[in-house]
This record gives sequence, C-alpha cells and structure tokens, in this order.
Amino acid sequence: MKAVTKVGITLGDPAGIGPEIVAAALHAAPREWRDRIIVYGDRGPLERAAKAQGIALPDVELVGSPHGDGDAAVPGNPDLVSGAAQVAYLEAAVAAAAAKNLAAIVTAPISKTWARRAGFAFLGHTEMLAERLGARDVAMFFVGPKLKVALATVHRPLAEVVTDLSTERIRSVVELVATSMVRDLGVAAPRIGVVGLNPHAGEDGLLGDEDADIIAPALAEPFPPSTLLGPLVPDAAFRDAVHGRYDALVAMYHDQGLIPVKLVDFDESVNVTLGLPIVRTSPDHGTAYDIAGKGIARSLSMQRALSLAMEMVERRAS
Amino acid sequence: MKAVTKVGITLGDPAGIGPEIVAAALHAAPREWRDRIIVYGDRGPLERAAKAQGIALPDVELVGSPHGDGDAAVPGNPDLVSGAAQVAYLEAAVAAAAAKNLAAIVTAPISKTWARRAGFAFLGHTEMLAERLGARDVAMFFVGPKLKVALATVHRPLAEVVTDLSTERIRSVVELVATSMVRDLGVAAPRIGVVGLNPHAGEDGLLGDEDADIIAPALAEPFPPSTLLGPLVPDAAFRDAVHGRYDALVAMYHDQGLIPVKLVDFDESVNVTLGLPIVRTSPDHGTAYDIAGKGIARSLSMQRALSLAMEMVERRAS
Repeated sequence: MKAVTKVGITLGDPAGIGPEIVAAALHAAPREWRDRIIVYGDRGPLERAAKAQGIALPDVELVGSPHGDGDAAVPGNPDLVSGAAQVAYLEAAVAAAAAKNLAAIVTAPISKTWARRAGFAFLGHTEMLAERLGARDVAMFFVGPKLKVALATVHRPLAEVVTDLSTERIRSVVELVATSMVRDLGVAAPRIGVVGLNPHAGEDGLLGDEDADIIAPALAEPFPPSTLLGPLVPDAAFRDAVHGRYDALVAMYHDQGLIPVKLVDFDESVNVTLGLPIVRTSPDHGTAYDIAGKGIARSLSMQRALSLAMEMVERRAS
Repeated sequence: MKAVTKVGITLGDPAGIGPEIVAAALHAAPREWRDRIIVYGDRGPLERAAKAQGIALPDVELVGSPHGDGDAAVPGNPDLVSGAAQVAYLEAAVAAAAAKNLAAIVTAPISKTWARRAGFAFLGHTEMLAERLGARDVAMFFVGPKLKVALATVHRPLAEVVTDLSTERIRSVVELVATSMVRDLGVAAPRIGVVGLNPHAGEDGLLGDEDADIIAPALAEPFPPSTLLGPLVPDAAFRDAVHGRYDALVAMYHDQGLIPVKLVDFDESVNVTLGLPIVRTSPDHGTAYDIAGKGIARSLSMQRALSLAMEMVERRAS
C-alpha cells in the first residue's frame, strides 16, 4: 500500500491574511506539489487575495465551507460568518486526517475570539487536533534556520509555570523532539539541549531547586541515538545553540523559548505540533486584520510551513 | 572646584583572568586616560599577565593589597590568599569612592566563593557597593551595541519572581534607566520599553494579571523627557528593541533580559550598576579559572566596561 502523502492547508479566518498567504504560498510552491495539496477554504477569498497580489491562483483541489459562507468574508472585518467558515475548514481537514486521507495539515491563522463565538470549543488549533486525533501528549516545536526550540509549558501565567512542570512532561517533550529530529528532520544523532528553569540553572540550589529536582531526572535515562544535555544555563543555552552546540532545545516556558526564536529567526520559524498522528505545521503569526486584504502580508512563514510539512511527510513515508 | 574624574579599576581575583583583561584593557586604552586611572591590584599578577600576552604594562597608578598578597596568586588556582587579595582591592577602591576620590569603579570578576571564604559578607559586588556607598535602590543595566536592558529582579528563583515584583520597584528601575539614558548615555528623549511578565503580556488577564495590576501602574506617571512604553509583549519586545523601536528596555527577571542580551551582544555588553553615587561598570563574565594565565582570555568586554565608565564620567562632569 502506498503511503498517504496528501497535505491539507486550512485557510484560517477568511477575513484575515490567511487567503493572501495561502495564495502566495501556493504560487511559490513547486508545480509537482500541486496534486498533493488540498486547500480547505472557499474560492472567493483565495481568488481575491491572488488578484490583490497580482498572481494567478494555481489549480489545486479546494474543499469549501458547507454553504460557501467564507466567500462573503470582508478582509479586516471578521464576523460570525467568517468565524463559522474558519471552523468549518478546520473540521473538514481534521475529518480527512482522521480518515487517514491526509498525512499533514498546514494551518493558516484562525481568530480564537471569532472561532469561539462560532462555537469552537478549544483554546486553539493544537488542543483541537490533539483531542480529535487522539494524541496523548503534544508539544509546540519551533523550527527555524537558526534555532529549533520546543516548549515544556506554553500558554500559562509565569506564576504557574513552576507548579505545572513535571519530570514526566519534560521527558515526554524531550522524547517527542528527539524522535522528530531523527524521523522528520533527518538528523542522525541529534544533541538535544534541555534548558534549566532558574537563573544559572539554579546554581547548585542557591537560585532554585527545580533544575536539579524536576529537570535533571528527566534526562537520566539515555534516548539513543540522541544525546540529552542539561539542565543548561538558560542565558548561555540559546547562544550556544545558535553557534551549533545543540541541534534542538527544550525550553521550560513560553517566553524562554520564544524571545530567542523571534529574535534570531523571526518569521522564518515554523510552528510544528509534535505528538499528533499526522504532521502539523503553521506559520508563526496571527490573523493580522490590520493589513488583511492589502496584499502586503509577508507569506514567508507560510511558505516555510508548507515546505517543512512536505519535507516531513516525505521523510516519514520513506 | 574641578569635578573628580578618576576611574578606579579593581583587579578582581588575581588567580582568575582579571590581571589579563585589565592589562589588555590598559594597553588598549588611549594614552590620555592613563593619569585618570587607578588600578587596585598587585603589580606581580599584572606584569605576568602582560608578559603572557606579549604586551607592555602601561604606567598607571597602582594600589596593591596590604601585604602584596596578590603577588603570590597562581592563575587557575584560587585560594584564601587570592580570596583575601581580591577583597582588599575592592575595599580600597570603595574607600576611595566613599572619600570622593573616584568618580567610577570598573570591577574585574571576583570569585564569590573565595571572596566569601576570605570574609566578604556580600552576595556580590553590587550589594557591597550599594551598602558601602549608601544607595537606596540599585539596578543592573546591561549596555551593549544592540540592546540596553535593565533588570527589575535579578538573582531569584523563577518561582519567587512574581512575588518579588512590585510597582514601586519597577518604577524605581524605570526612573534609574531613564535618568541614566539622558545623563550618562546622552540620549535626549529616550523611549523606555517595559517588558511584560507573562506570555503575550497577560493577554487581557487570560495569561496572568501582573502585567495589568503591577507593571502598568508603574508607567502611569510620565517621566519627561523619556517616553515610557509597556507592558510590552515579551517575545516581540527584544526584537523590536534591536530594530530600534526602544532605546532601552526594563526586563522583569534575569533570564528574560539576559537570554536576548547574550544572544545578540554576547561579550560586547557591559554591566552597569544604576543607583550608586558613582559610576560602576564591569565586564559580563566570571573569573574563568580554566583559561586563566594562558593569555587567551578575550578582553573586549573589559575594554568596553572601561570605555563606558570613561564616557559616563565625562558626561556627568560636563
């Protein structure tokens, strides 16, 4: 049986920059990818977005919203109709993935506010995909040219990070990253750096115990062919990773990972969800209503998200 | 009366890289600075360090330890004698500053462990200088070519950062930074960005209340000629600062500030202590016993610390 290698792209909020960046990414994609791509989105916004950028919309399979509701979306003016359309695109793609007709989903940004108003019951894409596709544990992994960083905790107030962290969770993220580095990114023997929680990684307990008590035990067991290193001094770890000492890092909290990622990789970083039965990537930005429809949104991150999904699917299939 | 413009340099641990980086910084310094510099350190380690680097030690005023104990220091082998010498250098410099004979102190790294064993009763340089010189509130301020970042909290376990932060402390650091930008660094109307504590600066309370409840009130009163901006989304603030949107940032905790500083400015960043009655700068690294005496320590950060002290003293005197 031939492995499924189809890649779905969800349009996100049709009133945001989703249609523009998807149209641009399709236009920039190699011709041979076209019959492997299914776009979950309505034709109207895509055609208008292509026109606004002076490009032709390539011929790919389109799966629209049930009543074509997304066609009515006005750039920069989200409403309940565009809210429902973005949820419908996502539901259709997830159903296809659950039926094993998609090997990957690339998601353009949704509006959490409007998706929720339209009945979407999840915090975001990741939580929805994890529940619908039956994932035990998932992790956000930012893959950029200079840094590859996964997060052990994500959208939590800083005060709750310490109580949320557990050795089991850190170990799980470490194994997800190590597995993905080998299987999806083709690194034969990755060096995985695990960043400490406290300044100076706790400095022998002077500046906190979690580095020794919670993080270090997560690295006790080897995980070949990867090498696990840490807990690393946070203010040195990212610099060292940029200079090639680690192939990927596991950060303990949102800003510990995302401040350096946005500083050195900015919009070249792709958000990868690890732990799902399919590949999932997305660009690292939001709906950007303020510039939607103007043809000025930068599509680089979306292009990278699509390329990376293609690359990961091919590696998994081979 | 002519303003005091003398700058003291403390040698730090004579068994560390202090003698090398001080000798190199003196060698690299413009000739006209020499009669304004007093080095608090013994001649032996300085002469040996100059020789190891193939440079001549310039003729500057030297104030050694009481019995010349530092002369016996062996690079890479700290002991109680070198521990006592580094404390003596610092005590002598602080006494000169307290007597208003120094306008600035540039400190080479001490060993906290060996200083403490030799009777030093402080966590580090900063705490000692604050107490001896009668400072009410001080702040660490990292001044580099790409980023200028002050810290609202410093050496605290991450779990204690949230409880340590107060509106008063943040306001104090903001005012120290704003004042220094104008008076010491010559920026006429600085834009001071104050970084949020939580991911997305709390996202309207979804990800924590401290940004709105503790940080925002610290920015309510204007502080002309500076403009105060924030609480900023942490993962965007540092990138935006590098791109020129802010002249300086106030970070809420150690790694929030130091991960980006070490990533983009590395050893070009100078640690400035704000809030003292004198200027105080230091290079941003430790004693580096592993390479001490080999003539390979990079002196760039020490050179920058000396230059910045000179520059700040001249601006304050003019």
